[in-house]
Parts: sequence; structure tokens; C-alpha cells
Amino acid sequence: MTTAGKVIVCKAAVAWEPNKPVKIEEIEVAPPQADEVRIKIVATAVCHSDLYYLLESMNKDGFPTVLGHEAAGIVESVGEGVTEFQPGDKVIPVFLPQCGECRFCKSPKTNQCETAWTLIRRDLMVSVQSRLSCNGKRLHQFAGTSTFSEYTVVHQTALAKIDPTAPLDKVCLIGCGISTGYGAAVNTAKVEPERIIAVDINADKFEKAKVFGATDFVNPKDHNKPINQVLADMTNGGVDYSIECTGKVEVMRSALESCVGSWGVSVIVGWTDLYDVAFRSSQLVTGRTWKGSLFGGFKGKHGVPGMVKAYQDKKLKLDEFITHKMTLDQVNDAIDLMKQCKCIRTVLTVCQE
Amino acid sequence: MTTAGKVIVCKAAVAWEPNKPVKIEEIEVAPPQADEVRIKIVATAVCHSDLYYLLESMNKDGFPTVLGHEAAGIVESVGEGVTEFQPGDKVIPVFLPQCGECRFCKSPKTNQCETAWTLIRRDLMVSVQSRLSCNGKRLHQFAGTSTFSEYTVVHQTALAKIDPTAPLDKVCLIGCGISTGYGAAVNTAKVEPERIIAVDINADKFEKAKVFGATDFVNPKDHNKPINQVLADMTNGGVDYSIECTGKVEVMRSALESCVGSWGVSVIVGWTDLYDVAFRSSQLVTGRTWKGSLFGGFKGKHGVPGMVKAYQDKKLKLDEFITHKMTLDQVNDAIDLMKQCKCIRTVLTVCQE
Repeated sequence: MTTAGKVIVCKAAVAWEPNKPVKIEEIEVAPPQADEVRIKIVATAVCHSDLYYLLESMNKDGFPTVLGHEAAGIVESVGEGVTEFQPGDKVIPVFLPQCGECRFCKSPKTNQCETAWTLIRRDLMVSVQSRLSCNGKRLHQFAGTSTFSEYTVVHQTALAKIDPTAPLDKVCLIGCGISTGYGAAVNTAKVEPERIIAVDINADKFEKAKVFGATDFVNPKDHNKPINQVLADMTNGGVDYSIECTGKVEVMRSALESCVGSWGVSVIVGWTDLYDVAFRSSQLVTGRTWKGSLFGGFKGKHGVPGMVKAYQDKKLKLDEFITHKMTLDQVNDAIDLMKQCKCIRTVLTVCQE
Repeated sequence: MTTAGKVIVCKAAVAWEPNKPVKIEEIEVAPPQADEVRIKIVATAVCHSDLYYLLESMNKDGFPTVLGHEAAGIVESVGEGVTEFQPGDKVIPVFLPQCGECRFCKSPKTNQCETAWTLIRRDLMVSVQSRLSCNGKRLHQFAGTSTFSEYTVVHQTALAKIDPTAPLDKVCLIGCGISTGYGAAVNTAKVEPERIIAVDINADKFEKAKVFGATDFVNPKDHNKPINQVLADMTNGGVDYSIECTGKVEVMRSALESCVGSWGVSVIVGWTDLYDVAFRSSQLVTGRTWKGSLFGGFKGKHGVPGMVKAYQDKKLKLDEFITHKMTLDQVNDAIDLMKQCKCIRTVLTVCQE
């Protein structure tokens, strides 16, 4: 019995209000409209951006919402005019859409999409339209995806088709965290193979960092000097590239200052819309470059399949990132683990393939 | 009668203390030591950085000093070990030295010089050693050059030899302002030929800007909206490149915000060491790049002769920048003109060739 064209009633984790646990509810997912695709979520990971929105964002207007944006699933049905996808396709939703037609999509300089800007309310980071509702109340669609749900509807520009043999409970990580970090280094900073210094106040992470190639580990808590000075001492004046991944403005400044003054490149990956960053302009004038990276500089639709292939070809590690596996029902436990900095990635199983 | 090896007594403009007119004094210029070159200054321009140091810097320890760093002259004598220069050579002092041997000089990524850092007290922007004195009191050598003087001694790494037919009263501008502005656009921002929007609260400058290729002119005072919004409206979302040339932190922020969010590149040229710049990190994360430019990214010794040739080949305009010609005796008048924003460049004749 096909579900196409019908409302699907299914389970989802609803964030009714900020700073509260999310609640597993029965929600309604309307059929996809023109240019939209309804997908069954097989696996979704919990990313720190979900927590940021739940705990730190001041946009109370963004609630109620269904969080989640790092996932993989299978196309259930498609709306009018959709030819790129068909039921059964394995897919990864991308929170950074790519229409392929606008001046940004046609340029190699950016992964922004001008058309996509019309699909997202940027003040709230939710879709302009949402097909999700609960007891007749519309639920905001977080990041244009809302993957803490058995089913969701995304715009066709916000979906990447992937290899049908890809394991969804692994490649879901490519939907955000892995692409973001890998791309920030490779696409945005354009790092060269060299010494990699992992800096964290959570020393528990150093063992895992080693698995991914870190050669040195520095815990700022072990030093009386500012971390930029520690790094300068280690590297004859500062690192060539620094990548900030915390969303803390003091760390962003420190990461810039940690770069060597003549040619250092610092990339901001962490997100905050709450505070201003402060810095000395002379830090740039003497030769540093400051950049940012969203989704690792990958154009969403085109970048994702290549990352999946890199994993399948064993050129990209994913399994090692996954420290916990749970089910959607346990989403609050997964959120707590991340709040307590006790995981790298938790993958939630949502539906069976 | 040769002056080589002897102290030269000559005229110079001494800045005895901040925020006061400079004073024409008789000073003593010691002979060049090893690796140093003594030069006769033929022409020097007044740059806003001279004013900044005189009026805004809080480093009172940098006084007394002889300002001036944008000049051209003729080698009078050379110190031990100097083979690159000989008496009679036409030269331009460069405030950003280039030893040619260090890791920075050998890299195309930067115009910094590690060796040079040992020649300059960076806290004060003066030479570690100075050959200038007045009535037995040592005068700091500003920017490693001090060109508001009939004679000065510079390190051989801080001097560029130029074509002997170059007119010194024109090419002196290449020693700072022209190279800085031209290079910021061409070397650092890497602009493409396109629309050029000049933004200034001094509308008197727009006519001159037109001579140098500006196509549009915006005076922020003519608008009720923030200038970044005005520029966004003019350019479908923001400019591709913005170059900040004021040293004001609010303008630095505004220049970043004036860039298009997806690929805009903003370059800070103006200098301040007094204040922090504040900005939203999201401005970078969505795709902007923030850079700085010192001496236009040119390696001092190697960049200058090419700029002189470009002028001689009529590929670079210099004459049009010069709005006033005076003598060294009139330096306070020249400083006042700049304070009152009534000039572009004033060139002071110092010695006869």
C-alpha cells in the first residue's frame, strides 16, 4: 500500500521550547509539494548545532521545531516536477541547498545558493514552509531538514543522491560534521600535509584525535601562557593554518592570533550569532587571512556523493567518529552525552531500511 | 670633497614630542655602519602614517624622532660589506625590509622579513639603532627610514635601487602610498576589472578618484542607511571586493559587511594599534574573506623597481596624485594640509640632485 500523496503519521522528536528536553510525539508529515521530496530517515546523528539551537539561540520564535540535520534516508515519494529523485533512492539531506542555476551556484568561489535563500528564513534558520505538524500545530522545519523524525519533506535542491550500496548509519555523518571539518581544512584553509596540533580543554578527545592524524596535543589548561603563545613557541612563531571549531568568540580571536603573522590562515567553523568577535586589525595587516567555512565549502548536492565515495574507497574515515549508537527514542540521552562532552558522534537509528 | 666616513651636519624636521609641530633643526648623521647605506633625500612625501604617529600614537617613547618614510634619494656612501649599492645610485627607502635569505623572504606568500624584525623595535616602529642625533641627543629613526631629513642612514635590506632616469620628485610616492593602495587591490584582494565604487565622506576627493578609474561615488553622509546597505542595494547584495583605507575600526567592520556574503573579500589597509575591531563571525562563515595588506603585499626591495618601471612605461599614474609641492622647511604646512583633508599628496623637495 503506497503512502505517496497521503499524509504520513509517524514519530518525531519535537522541541516544543528552548532549553527543555525534546519530546517524542506522533506528527503528521504532509505529501511533498512541487519540487519537494519526502524521505524516510534511516539514521540521523546529533550535531552540536542542534544543541546550539535548542540551548543557546535566542530565537524563541523558531519553536516548536523538529531538530536534526545530519542524516541519511530513502526517498518515499516526490512532488510535481521532481525528476532527479525517485522512490527508493538513497539520499542525504543537505542544509545548504544548491539550485545549480543562480550566480552563486555557477561560481566556483562559493557554496552559497541565492535561490536557497528564498527557502530559508535566515533569522530563524527554518524553512519558509514546513510540511510537519503535530496535533494541527505547525512545526518549524529546522535547517530546512528536521531529521529527528521518521519522515520529513525537503526541497529537491536540499537533497543529494548517493550510492545505493552506502551504509546509511555511517554516511549520515557526511550530512554535516564530517564534511564541515574535512572541507574547512581541505577546501577553505587549503592545508598542506604537515604537523597537526589538536587543541582542546577536553583531554579525553586526544586519543581519538590521534586516530585521525593529529601529531601533537595541547590542553590550554596545562599552560599558564595564552594558547597562542604556547603554539607560537612550539612552531617558531605561529601555525600556518588554524581552524576554530567551538563557536566561542574568544577562541576565534585566539585562533587568529595563533597563526604566524606573515601568512597564517585562520578559518572559523563554529557558529554563533550572539556575540561580536574582537581583534586587533594589525593581526591581519601584517599578513594573516581570516576566513569562514560553512559545510566545509562543499556545494551541498555535488559535494556529498564524492564524500560518500571517498568513504567507500576507504579514503575517508567515518566509523571511528561514531562513539554511540541509539534509537530516536533515546534522543535526549544523546543530547545529554553531547552536553557533557562524553561523545564524538551519536548515531540514532530512526527507521529500518 | 667627499663626505664618506664623516658625520654629516644637515637639516631635518625633528618631532620632539607628540601633538606638536615638528621643528627644522640642524642634526648630525653618522656614517653608515656595516650593511648600512647613507643617502641624500631628494624628495619626500607626507603620508598619513606620519601624522598617525605624530598625533594618535600613544608611544611617547618613540620621541624625539624624525618622521617621513615615503621618499627617493641618492646614495652618498655605503658601509662595510655593502656591494649592492654605490655612491650615486638612485634609491627608494623601504620601510618593510627584505633580507632575501629568511623563510619569509624565500616564500611567495608574504612580504614580511624575519631578519628585518630584528632591525625594528616593533613596539615603537623605530630602528633598533639610529645614526641620527641632534645636539648630542639621539633621535629615533621612524619606520627605519626618517626621510624628513637631508640625509639619513638605512639598512641595505631597506633600500631599493631604481632606474637612474627616474624623476625622484615623482617616484618617491612609490615608497609607501601608491604601492600600498595599488598592491592592496592587485596583489592582496586580486581584484578583477570591474565597477569601482569610491566611498568617502570628503566629496572633494571624488573628482580625483575619477581620474584613477572610479566609476561610482558614494558619500555616506548623503544616506540615512548604513553604507553597507547602500552598497548592497547598488550591487545586488554587496561588492566583490572592499578595501578599507582609513584606520578606523568602524570602517573596517563596515567594509567587511559591504562585501557580498558568499565570496566577498575585504582588505584592511589602514593602520591602528589603539582599538579592537568588532564583527559578527557569521559574516565570515557564510563566505567572506578578511585580509590585510602592508605595503600592498610587495616585497620591498623587489617590488619597488617594477613599480618605477610601470610609471616610466606610463602604466601607473603618479603625477596626478601630487596636489602640492613644497620644501622641507614647509613640512608643518604640509602636515596641516593633510590634517585638514585638503590634499592628496604633498611632495617636499629636500636636497637638489
